[in-house]
Amino acid sequence: MAKDFSSRSENYAQWYNDLVIKADLAENSAVRGCMVIKPYGYAIWEKIQAILDKMFKETGHSNVYFPIFIPKSFFSKEASHVEGFAKECAVVTHYRLKNSPDGKGVIVDEDAKLEEELIVRPTSETIIWDTYRNWINSYRDLPLLLNQWANVVRWEMRTRLFLRTTEFLWQEGHTAHATREEAVQEAERMLGVYADFAEKWMAIPVLKGVKSSSERFAGALETYAIEALMQDGKALQTGTSHFLGQNFAKAFDVKFLNRENQLDYVWATSWGVSTRLMGALVMAHSDDNGLVLPPKLAPIQVAIVPVFKNEEQLNTISKVVQPIKKALEKHGISVKYDDRDTHKPGWKFAEYEFKGVPLRITIGPRDIENNTVEIARRDTLEKEILQLTDIEEKVIHLLDQIQKNLFDRALSFREQNTRSVDSWEEFLDVIDNKGGFISAHWDGTVETEEKIKEETKATIRIIPVSNLKEGGKCVYSGKPSSQRVIFARAY
Amino acid sequence: MAKDFSSRSENYAQWYNDLVIKADLAENSAVRGCMVIKPYGYAIWEKIQAILDKMFKETGHSNVYFPIFIPKSFFSKEASHVEGFAKECAVVTHYRLKNSPDGKGVIVDEDAKLEEELIVRPTSETIIWDTYRNWINSYRDLPLLLNQWANVVRWEMRTRLFLRTTEFLWQEGHTAHATREEAVQEAERMLGVYADFAEKWMAIPVLKGVKSSSERFAGALETYAIEALMQDGKALQTGTSHFLGQNFAKAFDVKFLNRENQLDYVWATSWGVSTRLMGALVMAHSDDNGLVLPPKLAPIQVAIVPVFKNEEQLNTISKVVQPIKKALEKHGISVKYDDRDTHKPGWKFAEYEFKGVPLRITIGPRDIENNTVEIARRDTLEKEILQLTDIEEKVIHLLDQIQKNLFDRALSFREQNTRSVDSWEEFLDVIDNKGGFISAHWDGTVETEEKIKEETKATIRIIPVSNLKEGGKCVYSGKPSSQRVIFARAY
Repeated sequence: MAKDFSSRSENYAQWYNDLVIKADLAENSAVRGCMVIKPYGYAIWEKIQAILDKMFKETGHSNVYFPIFIPKSFFSKEASHVEGFAKECAVVTHYRLKNSPDGKGVIVDEDAKLEEELIVRPTSETIIWDTYRNWINSYRDLPLLLNQWANVVRWEMRTRLFLRTTEFLWQEGHTAHATREEAVQEAERMLGVYADFAEKWMAIPVLKGVKSSSERFAGALETYAIEALMQDGKALQTGTSHFLGQNFAKAFDVKFLNRENQLDYVWATSWGVSTRLMGALVMAHSDDNGLVLPPKLAPIQVAIVPVFKNEEQLNTISKVVQPIKKALEKHGISVKYDDRDTHKPGWKFAEYEFKGVPLRITIGPRDIENNTVEIARRDTLEKEILQLTDIEEKVIHLLDQIQKNLFDRALSFREQNTRSVDSWEEFLDVIDNKGGFISAHWDGTVETEEKIKEETKATIRIIPVSNLKEGGKCVYSGKPSSQRVIFARAY
Repeated sequence: MAKDFSSRSENYAQWYNDLVIKADLAENSAVRGCMVIKPYGYAIWEKIQAILDKMFKETGHSNVYFPIFIPKSFFSKEASHVEGFAKECAVVTHYRLKNSPDGKGVIVDEDAKLEEELIVRPTSETIIWDTYRNWINSYRDLPLLLNQWANVVRWEMRTRLFLRTTEFLWQEGHTAHATREEAVQEAERMLGVYADFAEKWMAIPVLKGVKSSSERFAGALETYAIEALMQDGKALQTGTSHFLGQNFAKAFDVKFLNRENQLDYVWATSWGVSTRLMGALVMAHSDDNGLVLPPKLAPIQVAIVPVFKNEEQLNTISKVVQPIKKALEKHGISVKYDDRDTHKPGWKFAEYEFKGVPLRITIGPRDIENNTVEIARRDTLEKEILQLTDIEEKVIHLLDQIQKNLFDRALSFREQNTRSVDSWEEFLDVIDNKGGFISAHWDGTVETEEKIKEETKATIRIIPVSNLKEGGKCVYSGKPSSQRVIFARAY
């Protein structure tokens, strides 16, 4: 199982890749840059989807589905979108194959060339706003609070499982509003939903803020983001929410009659999180023994492993385990009773440890005599002997504890690795030797931001929303600054 | 609402299209043949997905995700798959756009041409079996019971919303087994799951059977299907399950060590249903007043409409309605209380009738005095006055009744429109003047099947699995036949 598995200190990037592959989360496919999400990985993604989907519905959103293809000309309509958005897209040019003359396979039928090429959606603002034109006439049609779960394609040159893949799965919310204020509120509300999800479900503390103009989404007036800190001291953007102003409404001519009976352009937001969250989840909590999953997202929360020498012993144990399993499942806890005789207990211990199952219960013949079991926590690797009668209460308690402990651990790591820096020398020292988040003054210019990036590979992750305004001098240029921003090297 | 809405007898095809668009289920997009699934339509699809997904998991399946792109060469590997499968596929040839020299938009970057073209998946057998090669070594790795929910693209020339679109949403199960028997059982089990779902949830009776060789899936040894009868007398294939033998294992070299320690090729199945089910659902039950939805799949099961002249009256009504709403929701019933003052009650009645909401409750000032409400069934359009105290029990009862009535009505329609036919003259008469299913003897040859199709557009929908063997003469050729098969014109 854990053979040939790098440790974090040896090679963090290799550790991550090994973990994703050996824990059966995902693997590379035959198509460059595209991944196969395996059953165990997909089970986690399904949980993420289910919870987020519920949160979206509770905030008034409905799901829809728009086409995967977007006519090429749509990308030319919103000037800053076309200028700023990456051009690395999959382009469909033909719509038919045919048998090759040599009879050995199929070739592209050159007679079936599209008049206008279709782009596999890298994001759907353009086709959605082209459609909204027909859906919105009056303020009575607003707000339109829609979301879709979909696959998107961006032709990435360097890919890493979950973190950056050519095809990935995501949700994209696209809302339309009658006023600027409402749209800004929506963009901020959804950032709040993402932050809540990251902290309460993924057990990952996040910083909330806005992006600097150069890191903004192409076509947005403001990009809000949540940023998490990984164990190697690099930042990972885990969700973004954009206030798009009237840019897409103007590009696609989406007007409405407002309450004053005047024609105006519609205000927009869009927001998304993707399978990248899987990468964040793996990197935030796992250790050199394998995955560590927060109980709320673990496909298996409790693994029960019987220790037996013969069928009779197994039968005796199974009679004790079945009611425990049922009792736990009544609380909504997912339990796997692994009574396979094809694998030894030691193998199973390693397996569940490696796959990050939060709790493991072991029960053998001596436990049966003593009315006890052994329970092991994945996060601390602590073991404890329990009375049978205490199991239900203890498991519920421990799952809560583990969820809380993972968050606290990640928060404490972030706090230890967030440094207030006031000189360029210190900035260079921290970024090269310590990593983490750097809170520093910045003069607010794109120039300075660019130079810092060139010299250190650090970027402004966010301009914190909750920051107190505080006068100071830019850490790089020495020019006046009105607040600190967060720098880091990032994924 | 129902303005400009065709009746079934006037123009069935137009009636269907009007219904889908005016009931806000879906519409055509800016991309030829691709649809936009709107919130109300998607809410039904989400219910279909949730129920099927639960059924798949109860039968031991897990979800996965494979890439949307398939290398072109993969389609050349399984001979009958390449030969038989439609070549109308979207072909990706380039991976980058660039700004056009005139500065007016984007063009395809000819320097970014793929070495091997990628096909947008029309179905995923090839890439999945290419991957299974690395996942399967021994009988211990089997069975592999996997499914994915995905979008697929088939470049259809004539499209109809839900029934035949270039892009559609579906699930595709792909399983791998150690023996032929197990794989056949799996294919039959999943056909059973589809039939159960169609009958118990969609309230659509279906015939189960196998396809004739010419209607088989390309690469399959046997294709099982369920067929439903629509109100215009045409058949609609609503789900298929394929026994693929060892064809894909041989094409992609997927071998395993069996229990006898010998290398053998793996046995396969695949099975799928798609957004086509939405088309079946609309066509099976709806009428000239609009959609009729089975309660189990209706996004709104009960709509409550207050009749009021002023805010005081509305407040009085709302105080009565809120506890009713809560009581119903406790039973898992989805209730919409439409207290908007922007629309009149009559408009709301028409709206909920048109959108197929199974039950509508109306409550006005006189009802408040009498402790009554009016309840209206969408399926029969019957109305009834109820005591307030009876509502809970009555609503539960009526939702069950409506579900049952829709199924019974569809079953009775199918029975009236299934005819045993023994002469070619009668066959022609029935197919041209009555439609429906024809149960007739067939000599078992592709030739005869082809000729019947040419002359009547009728195809063999299924060879029933439950049929008694019965000697007879082919209705077309007069040659001996051992059992009746089901013919119909089909979507």
